This record gives sequence, C-alpha cells and structure tokens, in this order.
Amino acid sequence: MSKESTTGSAEERLIARYFKPLATHPGAFGLGDDAAAIEPPPGCDLVLKTDGVIAGVHFFPDDPPDLVAKKVLRMNLSDLAAKGARPLGFLLALALPAGTGEAWLAPFARGLGEDAELFGCPLLGGDTDHTPGPISVSVAAFGTVPHDRMVRRAGARPGDRIVVTGSIGDAALGLALRRDAAAAGRWGLTSAQQEHLKARYLLPQPRNAIAAFLGSYASAAMDISDGLAGDLGKLCRASGVAGEIDCARLPLSEAVRAALTREPALIATIVTGGDDYEILACVPAAKVADLQRDAAAAGVPVSEIGRIAAGEGTRLLAPDGKPLALAQSSYSHF
Amino acid sequence: MSKESTTGSAEERLIARYFKPLATHPGAFGLGDDAAAIEPPPGCDLVLKTDGVIAGVHFFPDDPPDLVAKKVLRMNLSDLAAKGARPLGFLLALALPAGTGEAWLAPFARGLGEDAELFGCPLLGGDTDHTPGPISVSVAAFGTVPHDRMVRRAGARPGDRIVVTGSIGDAALGLALRRDAAAAGRWGLTSAQQEHLKARYLLPQPRNAIAAFLGSYASAAMDISDGLAGDLGKLCRASGVAGEIDCARLPLSEAVRAALTREPALIATIVTGGDDYEILACVPAAKVADLQRDAAAAGVPVSEIGRIAAGEGTRLLAPDGKPLALAQSSYSHF
Repeated sequence: MSKESTTGSAEERLIARYFKPLATHPGAFGLGDDAAAIEPPPGCDLVLKTDGVIAGVHFFPDDPPDLVAKKVLRMNLSDLAAKGARPLGFLLALALPAGTGEAWLAPFARGLGEDAELFGCPLLGGDTDHTPGPISVSVAAFGTVPHDRMVRRAGARPGDRIVVTGSIGDAALGLALRRDAAAAGRWGLTSAQQEHLKARYLLPQPRNAIAAFLGSYASAAMDISDGLAGDLGKLCRASGVAGEIDCARLPLSEAVRAALTREPALIATIVTGGDDYEILACVPAAKVADLQRDAAAAGVPVSEIGRIAAGEGTRLLAPDGKPLALAQSSYSHF
Repeated sequence: MSKESTTGSAEERLIARYFKPLATHPGAFGLGDDAAAIEPPPGCDLVLKTDGVIAGVHFFPDDPPDLVAKKVLRMNLSDLAAKGARPLGFLLALALPAGTGEAWLAPFARGLGEDAELFGCPLLGGDTDHTPGPISVSVAAFGTVPHDRMVRRAGARPGDRIVVTGSIGDAALGLALRRDAAAAGRWGLTSAQQEHLKARYLLPQPRNAIAAFLGSYASAAMDISDGLAGDLGKLCRASGVAGEIDCARLPLSEAVRAALTREPALIATIVTGGDDYEILACVPAAKVADLQRDAAAAGVPVSEIGRIAAGEGTRLLAPDGKPLALAQSSYSHF
C-alpha cells in the first residue's frame, strides 16, 4: 500500500536499463529527477492528450510487445495529428503483473524507442508499478500548435466536405480475422490481404505527416479511433451540424473491398469497428483539392466521402443510396 | 480489443456527469474535444509528472473514493511543489472494473473536483476504460516554473543543510495501524493520535504553499514519497554527494513520538515507510533561516535534520549517535 520503488531497486534498474535510453530530451534529465521540464516554443499552445491500452481489452496478451508499445504511442500521436499538433514528447505509466520480465520489457522498450525517434516524440518521464491485474500502458502525449490554432472538433460548418485520410475498415476486419480465422476463407482473402488487415490492426499509421498544414484547410477534425460512424457523430454534435457520408465513396483497401464483395453486411463493421487511426476532417469545398494536393505530396491520400449540412444527426448512405441501419455506431464494452 | 467509447454511450454519460464539471480550464473544451490546448505562461518552463495508484497495491479497496482521488492528485502536486512549480492542470487516466458505479464514481469525482479547485489545478482531459483488473487511477500533472528554474535533485553541494517540511513517519505508522489494529495498544496511542496517523496516510498534505520561493533557497529538492532514507539516497546519488541525517532532529508528530518511545525499533519504519509527501531539500547553511521564516509565514514548518558532504552514500545517525542499520531504505514490492 505504499509507492513501490527502492534505492537501487529492481524498478530503478528496470528504468535505467530499458527506459533511460529513450529519454533523449534534455528536459527529461535522463529520468534522473522527479519530473521533466520543457520549454514550450514561444507563440505556441501545448496540446495534451492521454490514451492507453490494457491487455485483454485493447490488445491480445500475446501481441508482440514492440507493436503494443508502438500502438499505444501511435494512438496518441494520431490525436496530435488530427489536432494539427507537432509531437513534443510523452509520459508513460506502466502497470506490470509480477513476473513481467525481460522477454516482454526488452522488445516493448525497443519498439517504443523506435517510434519515439521516428515521430520525434521522446520519452519525458514515467511511472512504473506492479499490478495484480493485466499489463496496462497509459501514455500522456504533448504536442505544439501555433497559438489558438488547434484544429477543433467543433468547427464544422454547413457546406463543408467530409474527407478521410488513407483507408477505412482495415483494422476492424483485421481484428475480426484475429477472432475468427475461418472468416478469411469466407471472404476469399489471399494471404497477403489477410496480413495487410492484421497489420493495420496491430500497427496504426498515424497521419502526422499532414499535421503541419491540416489547420490551414480543415474547419474541424478528429482522428477515427472508435469507428467512422460514431466519430462523425461526435464531431457533428460538437459542431452543431448534420453530416452525411456516401459509403460508395469510402476509400477501401483491396483486401476490404474483396471481403465486402463477398459479404456486403461487412459495411457495418467497416464503419463502426474503429482502430482506423485515420483523420476525419471537414473542409470548405473550395479547399478540398488543395488539401488533397498537399497531403499527396506528404504521401497521404485524402478522399472526399460526404458533406456537412445544417441541422443535426448523421446519415450513412449505402452504395444503393439508402440510409445504412447500424445496430450501434461504435464498438463498446460499456 | 477496440477502444471503448460510443456515441451517447455509458462512457460519454459518465464523463459528462462526473468529470465535465471539473474541466473548468477553457483549454479543456469541456472535455468535448480529443485533446486539451493550453497556452503556457511566457518565460516559463512546463514541469511534467505522472504518478498513479492501483487498488490493493497503493490503496485499500474500501478507502473512501473521495480520498483516493485526492491522494492521487496530491501525490503529483507534491512533486510539483518540490520542483518549485505552480500547478497548471492535469490529465486523468481511469481504468474501472465492470460494475464500478455511482457509489464509487460520484464521491471520487467530488473529491477530485474539491482538490482541483483547492490547489488551482483543473482537469484538462482524460481517458476512461474498463479493466478486468483492479481500479487504477493515473494522473499526469503539469506545472510552471520560471525558465530553467525547476528545483533539481542534482543540485546539492557539500556544506548544504538537509531540511524537511512538516513531520516524518506519520503515514508509515498510519498504514501500520491499518494493517495491525493491535499496534495502537502496544504503542499506547490515544484515539486522536490513531486518527491523526491514519489521516496522514489517507490524505497527504503537499507543500505547494512553499513552491513559489523554494527555488530561491534550495540547491536541490524532491518530495518524500518512498521513505526519507531511500529518497535522500536518490538525491545524493543524483547530486554526487554524501548525506547524513541526525534522527534525533527529525520532526515527529506527538503520535509518532509516543509510538517511538514505546517501540524504538519503529525508527526504521519512520524513515523508510514512505507516503510522507513532505519536501526534502538541501539548502546552503546561510539560507536555512530565511527559508524557515518564509515557510513559516506560509504555514509550513521546516526543520534542519542533517548535512551534505563531499563523497557518496547516506548515513542516518540514531539518537545515540550510532549509524542506523536499515534492512532496506524504502518500501518495495519489487
């Protein structure tokens, strides 16, 4: 019932061995102080986000630890990207069951370090505890935007076009394949297509490459983590507008398209399954082409899929033009 | 295996009902966006800290939820205080077992809100998940200090005096009483003394009142969370110096003094038990009286208990002047 950490303790050795090498920011003091100190760039606001994962809830206990580390960091980076923020660093809170040893920690720290470097988002500090529960990893991530320029959920206006980055539904079908291997046969997927879907579930590709200019075009944005349908609902409620999506225009990977052809009902999984970590944005019609051009130059496809109108509520039109009936708009355990 | 949150879901209702009222900072956007945005005061560095508690590890599952909330926030506030930082706000990551209902959440949120207001540290955002494990609460807290003025662990110099705020050992004996009710009889404690010790365990009193001027006097500081002996060891290792404490000079509450008189071996628990959330600081000899005067004006007693010397290692001298032999310098589950 006391905080667990000792002089020269196992915790100190664990931190020194696995996490100190990741604390490359001078303000992290090599994890040798009680707190980090960073100097925010002048004229910038700090964007703050926390998100985490729990074994058995958000990831499979036997998922590769390096990918668990990358996923939880990328989940947070994806939010920073959608808010137009440049990554600055992160804090890590780790709860580990007794016996979590090198076999898990070494690859976890390696994966975390690789992505911290890749995305320019160094470890600033952390907290490590033992837990009688499952492995739990929580990240608090920080980014910067020019003052007052965080891209909000609440800025969508009637007439805006709805756009998304990348492709939708891959991770949801990847998760479905993890749960039901026989689905691959029903959907007629090649091995490469199966691997594509599973990889998209395991390792998000956050769109930080477009964060720097997203705010120049988008009136509102958020990342898609809980399913396109539900997240669009949140954005529209925050903005006080209505939104409509043509499912026929959804950007789908070859694998998702193949599965959907065999099993048209999968459209519900695709738009509600979540874990996409793409950006959903609302953009004035006159700016869509410019955003698409800049994003393409940054290697990120942007597709127009719908429009914002006055009013409230969201509607997804199936390829036949009829509104899609969804049992629920997002995946939920609640 | 997907993030849990839905449109108009139980999670959204939970957040709206219990936590939105705490998000009083304009940059929290009423918890209605994906991230918070704050404008750091010009000329200031941001101090970042994360610390958390897990039921059955850091608190008893039947501890009052409002005090659990206050304790986890105050643990972080105590670090900000020891670093000379003024609280700015915090992020909250909450993992809740199924069935955690209003009976726990309502008082938890009430306690959190009371302390957020008391310490001027508003809720900026958060993450709520279900867990198959125990209740887990993680806070990432942010404070500000004038640029480059965070009080470090690493600044202690030979000749500095070692000082502590408040009194040492209360929480450790409070915890011991929780675990072994018969101890109260052995120690000859009055009911009021027992209540004092238990209250000090349940509810830390972080010393944020002296944060604004601590850095004007202290060459190094940290908060005492893992036991005075172990935390002094960390500070001395970080500073590359040796430290010596006279246990006869330790500030002890009446209750701790009473128990120690009956059971002198308790000195080990007092200096290693942890959960003090007092500030340990190293101060040039010429500045001790000034710090004591300013701290007293802020309602915080500061006691000189030892000195820093060249070399390495730490030594605690028992009241008889002989070095205290400690089996371990901090409480640890590792």
